[in-house]
Amino acid sequence: MSKLKNDTFLRALLRQPTDYTPIWMMRQAGRYLPEYNETRARAGNFLNLCKSPDLATEVTLQPLARFPLDAAILFSDILTIPDAMGLGLYFSQGEGPKFERPLRDEWEIRDLAVPDPDVHLRYVMDAVRQIRKALNNEVPLIGFSGSPFTLACYMVEGGSSSDFALVKTMAYSRPELLHRILEINAQAVTIYLNAQIEAGAQAVMVFDSWGGALSHAAYREFSLSYMERIVAGLKREHNGEKVPVILFTKGGGLWLESIAATGCDAIGLDWTVDLGEARRRVGDKVALQGNLDPAVLLSNPEAVRREAEKVLASYGQGSGHVFNLGHGISQFTPPENAAALVEAVHELSRQYH
Amino acid sequence: MSKLKNDTFLRALLRQPTDYTPIWMMRQAGRYLPEYNETRARAGNFLNLCKSPDLATEVTLQPLARFPLDAAILFSDILTIPDAMGLGLYFSQGEGPKFERPLRDEWEIRDLAVPDPDVHLRYVMDAVRQIRKALNNEVPLIGFSGSPFTLACYMVEGGSSSDFALVKTMAYSRPELLHRILEINAQAVTIYLNAQIEAGAQAVMVFDSWGGALSHAAYREFSLSYMERIVAGLKREHNGEKVPVILFTKGGGLWLESIAATGCDAIGLDWTVDLGEARRRVGDKVALQGNLDPAVLLSNPEAVRREAEKVLASYGQGSGHVFNLGHGISQFTPPENAAALVEAVHELSRQYH
Repeated sequence: MSKLKNDTFLRALLRQPTDYTPIWMMRQAGRYLPEYNETRARAGNFLNLCKSPDLATEVTLQPLARFPLDAAILFSDILTIPDAMGLGLYFSQGEGPKFERPLRDEWEIRDLAVPDPDVHLRYVMDAVRQIRKALNNEVPLIGFSGSPFTLACYMVEGGSSSDFALVKTMAYSRPELLHRILEINAQAVTIYLNAQIEAGAQAVMVFDSWGGALSHAAYREFSLSYMERIVAGLKREHNGEKVPVILFTKGGGLWLESIAATGCDAIGLDWTVDLGEARRRVGDKVALQGNLDPAVLLSNPEAVRREAEKVLASYGQGSGHVFNLGHGISQFTPPENAAALVEAVHELSRQYH
Repeated sequence: MSKLKNDTFLRALLRQPTDYTPIWMMRQAGRYLPEYNETRARAGNFLNLCKSPDLATEVTLQPLARFPLDAAILFSDILTIPDAMGLGLYFSQGEGPKFERPLRDEWEIRDLAVPDPDVHLRYVMDAVRQIRKALNNEVPLIGFSGSPFTLACYMVEGGSSSDFALVKTMAYSRPELLHRILEINAQAVTIYLNAQIEAGAQAVMVFDSWGGALSHAAYREFSLSYMERIVAGLKREHNGEKVPVILFTKGGGLWLESIAATGCDAIGLDWTVDLGEARRRVGDKVALQGNLDPAVLLSNPEAVRREAEKVLASYGQGSGHVFNLGHGISQFTPPENAAALVEAVHELSRQYH
């Protein structure tokens, strides 16, 4: 393996010295880019785009051609695993992801099985390999999955939800059924992320989009404990290189100490958390990734620069910070604001290193 | 004024000793009750229900006839103030509150004026007086309003929003315009709540439903600082009785110390916060109100009792806790689960007093 030309992102995740603060943006390959919309139109729909390694490679690289980002992230969806389990993932206009066959009966839960990533998720591994080749060691590639609880939310609710009534009713009325789903999901995510690492992912991230909807106690029982098992089961080194793991629970700011105690390398933070306060709370246990409000990118380049500076100042001196948004970039972001952000972070962060 | 027969709620808010932990439920007069749906059908729609003092009195008392709750809350909406400002509140099926004339132009913001509660919000004051009479001093009556920022969200977005793109773009691009709206809203809320106190409200609560969508810094600037002004401007005593004020920012668990520092008497908590941990953080500055996940009420009476016990144990010994849900009760709650909750809290809390 040849050496990475820019390993700033990986070094920051491992809390090693860097010259500046690296940046990537959640959902950086997305609808705010005209070239993405063009490729997506060619694919016909979002799922075709995910399932074609050629097109996934194309869109993964698009933001890197525009902005000097410090990492690429596999273009895929957080719900590939339940799709591979046979639940039938689809996307309906304006309503987000849905499953054709959500889990409704007890026997369906008993019958759930861990999918073989090299068979049912082969298209993801092919995309990882192809993207790595195309990246030519310029910057590292991030692999990812949804968290066991977040997958379970969609598997039980059948789609997005404002109150998670079905999955929470299961948690309080039939916890053993939810634990069965989560157990299978945790095994599946572990195997899936390890396969992505084998295929070439140089860091991995677990997206716990909905853990923040749980009570503090239910979060530990139904989300965090399963992410902890995943962290313990991941290949943390591949081809002699460390593979850092990032856990991101949106709305998890109250629970940073517990997340840090899982053994992960870094915690993703949304914008509700004060980064400096978060750093004091977790000490030198983990790196921190975040946490600009994506709504800042709807304003103008001057405001973007001002708010980026606040995030950098809040983290303060030293390594261990990966700049990112606190959530995915909005489709209504003017690309010039994204450019202003990357430039501001690269330029203004040098004084902190 | 004759003395309240049950003042447990007010005593708990003032951190005075009580025999048990008082309980009321946010949105306790709501669609989970068949008798509420019957009255609402008679009214024609939700807004007619709010605007008729007779019908508002009727539904305010309905949950108290079923359950031995320790407080009544005025039946109204959090958005009465912008409606009185002329924005035209209406409710469209399944989409929540909307405004016919959201703030779109700068001159509309410059022209905003504080409504006179005794003229434009007379129906609310009439309802407060009528409910107090009907309550016959059995339990105290809570008055309320939306927070300045939460009102501004609806006034600018025109309705509910998942990302608050318009109001946040204003916050980052034209902060002076948002501050102008918030300044007027803060004056209006202060005058409105004082009028409710004059009319008979024995405690008041400010609902900051959307402050939790802000970054930590933006929360202080655009939400908390205006709630602080309201707290400073409220009549905290009426007819020789203290009138406690409760601030509730949904998703505000990270900011409890700052909320406690406003001078409010109590903080409302959603279910993501550990109540014991919250108590350690705020010390004896304020009482705490909350924080059962309303989804627990979708399960069964045994699970409800078990989870209620956990909340009580988490708060621990002593006064200063008002039991509540962490958010409004779901319309799909079986009334027998609500009954089980009230019974469990009254019975199980005695050991902590």
